Amino acid sequence: MKARVTVMLKQGVLDPQGAAVQSALGSLGFEGVEGVRQGKVIELDLADGTTEAQVGEMCEKLLANTVIESYRVEMGPAGKSA
Amino acid sequence: MKARVTVMLKQGVLDPQGAAVQSALGSLGFEGVEGVRQGKVIELDLADGTTEAQVGEMCEKLLANTVIESYRVEMGPAGKSA
Repeated sequence: MKARVTVMLKQGVLDPQGAAVQSALGSLGFEGVEGVRQGKVIELDLADGTTEAQVGEMCEKLLANTVIESYRVEMGPAGKSA
Repeated sequence: MKARVTVMLKQGVLDPQGAAVQSALGSLGFEGVEGVRQGKVIELDLADGTTEAQVGEMCEKLLANTVIESYRVEMGPAGKSA
């Protein structure tokens, strides 16, 4: 089975990567880009029977720095194209 | 309005970040992690009326390296919690 974890910086935490992307898009002539936040997505291929709670534990222990980052877990069925 | 761009390494491209996460999860005692791929997610806050085609152009020109990365664009309504 698949699980997808999305990790984003919390609101209010400075996001220099996002700011750099926003600035670069402006330089390339794209108008109307009012804000950019960049985060990471981790796609896990898991043994069947792994629970969302176990994936949450992986996030707490390794995948996210919960002081400054929030995470969201989406579980998918086996074989789902992720 | 919001748009979310997900950029992942293409299948077959070595993903050392993903491999490091997989190894670290194993070291922490999580069993059954059969594969990990890590990518990035970029949340864009856009002026109303920006089209998905314009976001696609941003991906082609800046956000993704299309030689080794694939991207997916999801458009959301204004005010949608992303």
